[in-house]
Amino acid sequence: MPSYKAPTKDMSFVLHDLLKISASEIPGYADLDSEFTTAILDEAAKLAEGAMAPLNAIGDQQGCRLENGVVRTPDGYKEAFEQVKAGGWNGLDLPEEYGGQNLPYVLQSAVGELFSGANMAFNMYQGLTHGAISAIIAHGSDAQKALFLPKMISLDWTGTMNLTEPHCGTDLGLIRTKADPQDDGSYQITGQKIFISAGDHDMAENVIHLVLAKAPGGGDGTKGISLFIVPKIMVKDDGSLGAPNAVSVGKIEEKMGIHGNSTCVMNYDGATGYLVGDLHKGMRAMFTMMNEARLGVGLQGYAQAEIAYQNALAYAIDRLQGRDVTGTKNPDGPADPLIVHPDVRRMLMDQKSFVEGARAFTMWGASLIDRAHRMNDVQADGLISLLTPVIKGFLTDKGFDMCIQAQQVYGGHGYIEEWGMSQYARDARIAMIYEGANGIQALDLVGRKLAQDGGKHVMAFFALVKDFIKENEGDARLDEFLNPLKAASKDLQAAGMYFMENGMKNPNDALAGSNDFMHLFGHVCLGLVWAQMAKAALAALDGGATDRAFLDAKLTTGRYYMTRHLPATALHLVRIRSGSGAMMALSPDQF
Amino acid sequence: MPSYKAPTKDMSFVLHDLLKISASEIPGYADLDSEFTTAILDEAAKLAEGAMAPLNAIGDQQGCRLENGVVRTPDGYKEAFEQVKAGGWNGLDLPEEYGGQNLPYVLQSAVGELFSGANMAFNMYQGLTHGAISAIIAHGSDAQKALFLPKMISLDWTGTMNLTEPHCGTDLGLIRTKADPQDDGSYQITGQKIFISAGDHDMAENVIHLVLAKAPGGGDGTKGISLFIVPKIMVKDDGSLGAPNAVSVGKIEEKMGIHGNSTCVMNYDGATGYLVGDLHKGMRAMFTMMNEARLGVGLQGYAQAEIAYQNALAYAIDRLQGRDVTGTKNPDGPADPLIVHPDVRRMLMDQKSFVEGARAFTMWGASLIDRAHRMNDVQADGLISLLTPVIKGFLTDKGFDMCIQAQQVYGGHGYIEEWGMSQYARDARIAMIYEGANGIQALDLVGRKLAQDGGKHVMAFFALVKDFIKENEGDARLDEFLNPLKAASKDLQAAGMYFMENGMKNPNDALAGSNDFMHLFGHVCLGLVWAQMAKAALAALDGGATDRAFLDAKLTTGRYYMTRHLPATALHLVRIRSGSGAMMALSPDQF
Repeated sequence: MPSYKAPTKDMSFVLHDLLKISASEIPGYADLDSEFTTAILDEAAKLAEGAMAPLNAIGDQQGCRLENGVVRTPDGYKEAFEQVKAGGWNGLDLPEEYGGQNLPYVLQSAVGELFSGANMAFNMYQGLTHGAISAIIAHGSDAQKALFLPKMISLDWTGTMNLTEPHCGTDLGLIRTKADPQDDGSYQITGQKIFISAGDHDMAENVIHLVLAKAPGGGDGTKGISLFIVPKIMVKDDGSLGAPNAVSVGKIEEKMGIHGNSTCVMNYDGATGYLVGDLHKGMRAMFTMMNEARLGVGLQGYAQAEIAYQNALAYAIDRLQGRDVTGTKNPDGPADPLIVHPDVRRMLMDQKSFVEGARAFTMWGASLIDRAHRMNDVQADGLISLLTPVIKGFLTDKGFDMCIQAQQVYGGHGYIEEWGMSQYARDARIAMIYEGANGIQALDLVGRKLAQDGGKHVMAFFALVKDFIKENEGDARLDEFLNPLKAASKDLQAAGMYFMENGMKNPNDALAGSNDFMHLFGHVCLGLVWAQMAKAALAALDGGATDRAFLDAKLTTGRYYMTRHLPATALHLVRIRSGSGAMMALSPDQF
Repeated sequence: MPSYKAPTKDMSFVLHDLLKISASEIPGYADLDSEFTTAILDEAAKLAEGAMAPLNAIGDQQGCRLENGVVRTPDGYKEAFEQVKAGGWNGLDLPEEYGGQNLPYVLQSAVGELFSGANMAFNMYQGLTHGAISAIIAHGSDAQKALFLPKMISLDWTGTMNLTEPHCGTDLGLIRTKADPQDDGSYQITGQKIFISAGDHDMAENVIHLVLAKAPGGGDGTKGISLFIVPKIMVKDDGSLGAPNAVSVGKIEEKMGIHGNSTCVMNYDGATGYLVGDLHKGMRAMFTMMNEARLGVGLQGYAQAEIAYQNALAYAIDRLQGRDVTGTKNPDGPADPLIVHPDVRRMLMDQKSFVEGARAFTMWGASLIDRAHRMNDVQADGLISLLTPVIKGFLTDKGFDMCIQAQQVYGGHGYIEEWGMSQYARDARIAMIYEGANGIQALDLVGRKLAQDGGKHVMAFFALVKDFIKENEGDARLDEFLNPLKAASKDLQAAGMYFMENGMKNPNDALAGSNDFMHLFGHVCLGLVWAQMAKAALAALDGGATDRAFLDAKLTTGRYYMTRHLPATALHLVRIRSGSGAMMALSPDQF
């Protein structure tokens, strides 16, 4: 019953009207004209709508099964995965020398939203592989790259990331998985890893696990950690497959959602592993790809909100219930459609204004990653490093809230699994947790990113907002966007000031406000992109664009965000300024 | 793995320190001294902790099954239900003449929280019966009361409420179920009802369905609706059971949560029904028991938050991860417990301050119901009528949020079903939807209750807040509670003023702010009860109470609510004042 329509039109607006990518000096962007990106997105849309979305509910219902040590994916997954392989989608932004197409990451992100929106659990098999590939590209040896990347990019082999153990998630310094060096230069990996997404399955001939483990001599805590490649099936030097490695699936976890993805307990019983990068520098290797992975999770958050919104909208237009208090809209029917009711509108506009803002924010973030990687632009790198926890934390918190709200539009039917709204909420829930729980994102933002490089990047962000306001103050039509943005940005600066003044004396005063700061920052970012989108929409209208209904809607949706959501910054500031007093006062036994 | 500990200590504080029930002039309250209520709550706690809580996860995993037309409940349900029956719990507040104990509703509410917190799905079989009993007491004939009530109060028979049909939930005027009058004065009921909680099961010998249907001659819309008793198995005049009625279970719905409760599609195929109350006055019959039922759902919202909080707290104390930035707290361990981290504290304090405030608010509401019923106090009746949508809507919205937050404390483990945190969230989700979706609560509040009796009741509420502030301004220790309460109450009045000034010109300007108003109102109510609890805690401390740690924690928790949550009223006011402009501007095809 639920459906998915790829929002390619809005993506084109973001890519071309807002970001104007084909006019950018970032290498590779000049090729991204509207005709080209439309062709790519239309192809991706076909796959998302035609092959992935129809399997979403099936995956949720069937889940994955562990049969005689082998993980079986839901019906239809294998065939759909073959289509992803055949289309070369996994290599979109990956190096040509290993079989990729070397297109910009901004395009990969757009495609990623479509795939993730259509079927989050399914898309994770590819997503985890992409992450593992990035780690090998960044830190692997030439021989490792040559041996593993082509097969992983083609999805003949998939990849995983193994960090968490039963007793440690966030605090990786506590991991116990051991790596014993062997005479041939390899290591024997022994230990148990949990929550391994796409840990095993029946859609590829091999799984390449990237595993954090402790090799002798590295010292305590995170310092002793190294990163290893541990194939499920041994890979010979010529790339052919050998014997099974000593890796097995302990069990598949029963989860709240993303049932179609096999979240595995992985047991390494003296499995052969190969060091990636420098010994005892495993944490650094993990962190270098965090920006990209976390942006990918933020994207999942609003991608689920998008599909939930689409279905809530369809239901609100279709379902007849009650009458418009200002006058009947459907006199020939037994009742008016839900969409006439203000509180239903509120929910729909909340969702619409969030999703469109989140998309613009994330795509802008993706373009910053391109700028950093393709131009070695350290400022862009610093800025996206600052914004990454905001993208991950804010967009997944809000994305989940929007799924809950979309479910609410359905009334009682929203609670019944057959209508699909429950699945979107259950699936979206994980994005707030994995790849660093959102509390960790907030900690990363306030505890590390804010002061990084002497606070240079947050100053650059403020300058960017200020410059945009200044440049556009002449256009009175933008006042309703610029004024709220100015106020919100002031709140953000005041919050930063509070941290500077109080965080040194009592770090808890800063950390107590970390979640609020992340949300405050997120609102300012969405306020900024909405103001920029308003400018872009007005420019298009001034330029005689034909799709005036779409552009008018864009302006209205932006107005809605500015008046109803951006003012939340003031509340966050009040909370931040309340410090840690009452929060930290109780002893644990007083709770 | 999850556990439940009945919060009887906090309940005693609310009953005796805050509400001072045994000193109240409400008939029946004088008997409720601390010794008596403790005895009752301890017995209820035994049942909740020992019999109900252990079945909570089992019910979620097994769900209910429809086998050859008969609904089978999860393992252990029948035995636990026998214990509820044996203890006479269902009759706690019901008339003695039919086998009840006629104790005040405030005590029934406290017991209801324990049962609902321990196992929401299980407790609904009793809860729905209680609701059906209330309807028969209020509107049934003496003969009906004599025939049905004793068996229903003893839980030999359970009850259901049948309102919703596939094409209509909120808009009951659209129902199609028909009631054809028969020569013997009974009716033949024909139609399909959906979402019927506790619709059928194997724990009682009969199910008494209360069904809304249209009998001839009543006119269109809700005017034509009447209420009928439709037994699953026919009841003879002497109370013995006869032949099965023409009622059957179409299917059990697959839901997001409360799997242990059988949510049924019920088919009435010319089933024999008996009119309850006046013909064509069925809606009135339904509405008279709404206050109680909706208070019961608000209670479910915070009861789930309570059990989720308890488990999150235990995990935060037990789980070692990371170090306190202000200095190690567990130097001999590999890491400090989660509870040292400010952002974890934030989540726990959010939950604690919400649950305790919600409990006090709801118990106060229950005492207003007692006052209204037992003293025919029309002012109390008007006030609880005003507060009911706030209790239902605000407490279930926030209760769900708190379950999500409790789940977040667990990190990845929160997403794994075996830890139980997912179930609390999934179960709590329904409370935002059923018994009138929360948007309907907000509409009821703004569209009906606010202006009811010339706005008398909201004025009475404001006077109550004002008087409390005035009476206590002399105690400087209460300033930190009274000042924020004053500000929040001012925001609430300003919002009411906005509706008065704008709602007449454009009803959408009022309805656009209905959800925000409900939340604004909820915050003021919790702010009020927190200020009252602070006063009560100080009085107890002044009086030499021995449990100073508990009372200190009460004050700290109240402070936390006042500084971090009550300020949300300002944001809600800003949103309300933004009106309906951008919200209603788009045509449906512009979405």
